[in-house]
Amino acid sequence: MASNSFGNIFRLTSFGESHGSALGGIIDGCPAGLKIDESLVQLELDRRKPGQSKITTQRKEADKVVFHSGIFEGITTGSPIGFSIENTNQRSKDYSHIKDSYRPSHADYVYDKKYGFRDYRGGGRSSARETVARVVAGSIAKQFISPVHVQAYVNQVGTMRLDQFYTELDLSRAEENIVRCPDPQMAEKMIDYIGQVKKKGDTVGGVIRCVIKHVPVGLGEPVFQKLHANLGAAMLSINAVKGFAYGSGFEGAAMFGSDHNDYFNSDGSTKTNYSGGIQGGISNGMDIYFDVAFKPVATILQPYETLTTEGAIEETHGKGRHDPCVVPRAVPIVEAMAALVIADHILLNRNTKIK
Amino acid sequence: MASNSFGNIFRLTSFGESHGSALGGIIDGCPAGLKIDESLVQLELDRRKPGQSKITTQRKEADKVVFHSGIFEGITTGSPIGFSIENTNQRSKDYSHIKDSYRPSHADYVYDKKYGFRDYRGGGRSSARETVARVVAGSIAKQFISPVHVQAYVNQVGTMRLDQFYTELDLSRAEENIVRCPDPQMAEKMIDYIGQVKKKGDTVGGVIRCVIKHVPVGLGEPVFQKLHANLGAAMLSINAVKGFAYGSGFEGAAMFGSDHNDYFNSDGSTKTNYSGGIQGGISNGMDIYFDVAFKPVATILQPYETLTTEGAIEETHGKGRHDPCVVPRAVPIVEAMAALVIADHILLNRNTKIK
Amino acid sequence: MASNSFGNIFRLTSFGESHGSALGGIIDGCPAGLKIDESLVQLELDRRKPGQSKITTQRKEADKVVFHSGIFEGITTGSPIGFSIENTNQRSKDYSHIKDSYRPSHADYVYDKKYGFRDYRGGGRSSARETVARVVAGSIAKQFISPVHVQAYVNQVGTMRLDQFYTELDLSRAEENIVRCPDPQMAEKMIDYIGQVKKKGDTVGGVIRCVIKHVPVGLGEPVFQKLHANLGAAMLSINAVKGFAYGSGFEGAAMFGSDHNDYFNSDGSTKTNYSGGIQGGISNGMDIYFDVAFKPVATILQPYETLTTEGAIEETHGKGRHDPCVVPRAVPIVEAMAALVIADHILLNRNTKIK
Amino acid sequence: MASNSFGNIFRLTSFGESHGSALGGIIDGCPAGLKIDESLVQLELDRRKPGQSKITTQRKEADKVVFHSGIFEGITTGSPIGFSIENTNQRSKDYSHIKDSYRPSHADYVYDKKYGFRDYRGGGRSSARETVARVVAGSIAKQFISPVHVQAYVNQVGTMRLDQFYTELDLSRAEENIVRCPDPQMAEKMIDYIGQVKKKGDTVGGVIRCVIKHVPVGLGEPVFQKLHANLGAAMLSINAVKGFAYGSGFEGAAMFGSDHNDYFNSDGSTKTNYSGGIQGGISNGMDIYFDVAFKPVATILQPYETLTTEGAIEETHGKGRHDPCVVPRAVPIVEAMAALVIADHILLNRNTKIK
Repeated sequence: MASNSFGNIFRLTSFGESHGSALGGIIDGCPAGLKIDESLVQLELDRRKPGQSKITTQRKEADKVVFHSGIFEGITTGSPIGFSIENTNQRSKDYSHIKDSYRPSHADYVYDKKYGFRDYRGGGRSSARETVARVVAGSIAKQFISPVHVQAYVNQVGTMRLDQFYTELDLSRAEENIVRCPDPQMAEKMIDYIGQVKKKGDTVGGVIRCVIKHVPVGLGEPVFQKLHANLGAAMLSINAVKGFAYGSGFEGAAMFGSDHNDYFNSDGSTKTNYSGGIQGGISNGMDIYFDVAFKPVATILQPYETLTTEGAIEETHGKGRHDPCVVPRAVPIVEAMAALVIADHILLNRNTKIK
Repeated sequence: MASNSFGNIFRLTSFGESHGSALGGIIDGCPAGLKIDESLVQLELDRRKPGQSKITTQRKEADKVVFHSGIFEGITTGSPIGFSIENTNQRSKDYSHIKDSYRPSHADYVYDKKYGFRDYRGGGRSSARETVARVVAGSIAKQFISPVHVQAYVNQVGTMRLDQFYTELDLSRAEENIVRCPDPQMAEKMIDYIGQVKKKGDTVGGVIRCVIKHVPVGLGEPVFQKLHANLGAAMLSINAVKGFAYGSGFEGAAMFGSDHNDYFNSDGSTKTNYSGGIQGGISNGMDIYFDVAFKPVATILQPYETLTTEGAIEETHGKGRHDPCVVPRAVPIVEAMAALVIADHILLNRNTKIK
Repeated sequence: MASNSFGNIFRLTSFGESHGSALGGIIDGCPAGLKIDESLVQLELDRRKPGQSKITTQRKEADKVVFHSGIFEGITTGSPIGFSIENTNQRSKDYSHIKDSYRPSHADYVYDKKYGFRDYRGGGRSSARETVARVVAGSIAKQFISPVHVQAYVNQVGTMRLDQFYTELDLSRAEENIVRCPDPQMAEKMIDYIGQVKKKGDTVGGVIRCVIKHVPVGLGEPVFQKLHANLGAAMLSINAVKGFAYGSGFEGAAMFGSDHNDYFNSDGSTKTNYSGGIQGGISNGMDIYFDVAFKPVATILQPYETLTTEGAIEETHGKGRHDPCVVPRAVPIVEAMAALVIADHILLNRNTKIK
Repeated sequence: MASNSFGNIFRLTSFGESHGSALGGIIDGCPAGLKIDESLVQLELDRRKPGQSKITTQRKEADKVVFHSGIFEGITTGSPIGFSIENTNQRSKDYSHIKDSYRPSHADYVYDKKYGFRDYRGGGRSSARETVARVVAGSIAKQFISPVHVQAYVNQVGTMRLDQFYTELDLSRAEENIVRCPDPQMAEKMIDYIGQVKKKGDTVGGVIRCVIKHVPVGLGEPVFQKLHANLGAAMLSINAVKGFAYGSGFEGAAMFGSDHNDYFNSDGSTKTNYSGGIQGGISNGMDIYFDVAFKPVATILQPYETLTTEGAIEETHGKGRHDPCVVPRAVPIVEAMAALVIADHILLNRNTKIK
């Protein structure tokens, strides 16, 4: 049922497991005539890739993208853009211990029950490795939507949370540190914190904030494709995401209308932006901003209980190479999905008027 | 671009503005052979309808649904179910003051910019009156998905928030009071609070919690149609919603993996349920629960500034019949959308295996 | 599974059976700002309606369309256009003879087997009465696509077939006679012929030719949404249609490439038009033309054998009010479906280039 | 706009041009648990591949398929099946003569006008080489739908046409000769005929008949996804196809209802099969059969006129390696598309009843 496709017009369909020969996808609906800088695509993949710093998994993947179609002499032709990323680091390790038991808070149990069996190597399709295809497509989308600009950063790691609103931060500094937090002092603290968590073999969650600037007025479709509904669906489709809130979010629930209303300036901009750049599901030209909550990774390097396929509870001990905290590597994924939504809505919006 | 359709297989397409002759919709994909109790549909509409209590808008609408097709001798035939709800209370009042100005935090401005003009009577398509079609379709979905059971209730109004987790509450009591909070004492407080807000001509937001019980294992599709991604999109498509979180939600971001993991019982159930009944995007048979944040309604009965279509800032004073707090009436809407998602995923799931 | 929706962007979803309270539909995706002449919609319905002449069924239906939404002060708003047509002539006749037996070459048998039971009154959803919604939507589409012009006419009735190619005919004369054939002499013959067939209680098939003029270059999407593939699907979805061919069609199969190639004029037009205005699935600016074959209506007013639900073969005798030949009334339906396809492709084509 | 995807649930998305590094696709929605015989996939590719006989193009392509995902230990997992076929024979020839001119009855002109420019190497996305992805997906579909059996054969080449109805032929003999006609004598004549056409540097069209056996009753969805409408769309999406007709087809238009009706046997089968196995858009259990008309290939090895991008008419002479008649190689493509439609409808049909 096409559950591996995303978008209405600018549309990604992806394939691949962590232990197959390759992952990849097809971008259908990217308009013709777009100049593609493939180095920017690779840059985004590098932001996402494992092994990039001491606070990420030490697994190494080259993550080199190859484009097979749809780009001719550096320009999109309007034909579908097929691409693949080879899996180079599929350890031929023995997965039989995973085969016969279900790890807690993983997808093992539900996949087995749903499909009757599963590709147990490295999580199969439920592995976050799947997101490489999103990052490739998102990078193409970023190039298409320019000058609309998408930037995400880490706002919270565990209990460590930025006090400043995004407008008080220099977001360009987020990429200066390995945790991707734009406040250097907080970044330091977060990195230390993650280091301690890692040392215990534990993991911790976090929150990413994403800001989209230079959005034209009018993106978003009533009723069921409100801009924030599509952004929310995009974020919630990322592994480990537990929540999405835009503008005033959950805090808005505690506010009065007289405080929450964003009063106009005479140019149509607003004095405040509790709306988060979206009103009635449609962008109003102000910055769009939203938060995405990530749970702690389920794989811990501590003793824990699993359920065997025979129905027994067994003690085991986590091993392998895993991220103590996913949010630093999830930043480019959040951006990619946001860019895909914006690209799709720019195209949807072309059909608004008879013109 | 079919932005007025929702669902893949069990699919609602809706139409209607607050001031047209009727609203309605078409439910396509409801399987044949389902016994329909039309009185249950009407009951849901009555839970949503305006004028039902002192804390809702005093506008009156009969909201009687008429089914035109797809049901024969009380049984669904597999043909599309067309239905309509007449608009009976379209006051022929003068909307010219709205015509020429944009109310803050409404959809007026963005609709005008997007479409070139707008149906300014009562908000047109951006009016929450549109949700009547969702409630009708959701009630059909509820009948289809039974014994899966969806129940929502008010968890927070402004700063008044229930301390108890849903498992500590008797949810059956939520419908005993007009604010739809299952704790009678908190309900009392919330009602008082809304009364005070109303007296000031102000509005306030709130949070609805929704619980889905008796969910079979295996609902949800990887990658882009994870069960919670579709639930989130459904909720975020409801007017005034600002956030969605399931299971541990935003609090999960502050937790450690060793605390957050839901360890198994030998029957496959889990000892805790931070996962919120969904792992890897697929239901695991535990209760699904999630929170939906609503902003305060933008229409306040106080003086406020608008922007005229000519670009001037003008002071005006809100009038008319509006809800001081939408969450009590939004409870059946949340349930309806949740039921639609579950119905769709039950059907999607039929195609999982070769059988 | 949304099988009652048609189109990608300009999208009709329809509902209704011949014996419900109403039929209707929702047009989603019609751009804002289109001036609607409702009298033109009614005109198309009148071209389709039963009882319009001596060679159609004598059943009478008012077929008055009511628009409920999406049009404000005569202009489309971009919101979904909901509409309905009341059923006024649902004879309360006894259908029990149909209930318990399957008429040959009707949908009775397959509906019962597929759905477990059926709405047996007047054919239920399989009734061609369903096409009223298509005609309404098609008329809106015609107004949108103007100056692209769609015209169909009857090219063949039984063995009576026009010798002239459409370019040799004055198509404006097709509406001057009740059989909708632009050659007055052939029209006379066809009318006589249908009269004789009717007298015997028999029915006969026919072929409609459709011509689309003033088509811009570039409509149609590779690979699976070639313009003629969508036109073909549209036509084949009309009741009683058995075949579709465009341009040289089946005769083209017997030709040599050296004869079949359409050589260019220097303005990009072609000297011949075996391509039927479409090359590689994309319009080339020449006239699009295609043929649609209709089988003879299955309901004959003669003795014939049915299969009872108990598995017995029984002799019965057809009765009621039926068309001896559907093609005259199918002309506006063919045009409506063609207009819907063109409207959809005009919108799809807006997303071709980065612009 | 996802124009490179086909199917609702069992869904192929394809990519690739004749001169990129690879072509391929993603099959989404194939149920889990299907045993895949990859050698059967290769067999179908070999039936389609160029250079297989003296009456096809002499171009050579290995056409080896590689599966990247979705199959684990020979069984489908329910995850998307990604696959690719390397292009090995991309002659680095000079295409500049094609770059600056439009060949008659090719897609050159319309692609340039639609997209602003085109990948002119070997026809780009409009090349029939695109159909390799269809054949791969169709072969997976064939394995899924078994025991439903799809077989196509060549019924007509130019003016040479089989007199026998398919029931009078031994279809198993179609693969015994290079033209894929089940009558050995007619096959001989067709091969001679094509040889003569080839000698003149000309091309010729033809007709393929396809027969689907062992179809369960109940496949097909009203209204817009009638089984034959989807089959027709599938066939019309194949390069060079000009017409589609099922059952009595265009001949049915000349028949009387009293002759055309298929009377029942007591087991629900019918004495005749003018319906072509489909009534009211739904399979009735009888054989489905249909015809697909192909035009003569536009590339002829004779002098002909082109239009330059500057608007001049120029004489040129065709060269290269092309098929004098496409129908022998199109047989597996027709079968593949038919199998995809049946697979999709088997899955769609699972949602018919509440069960």
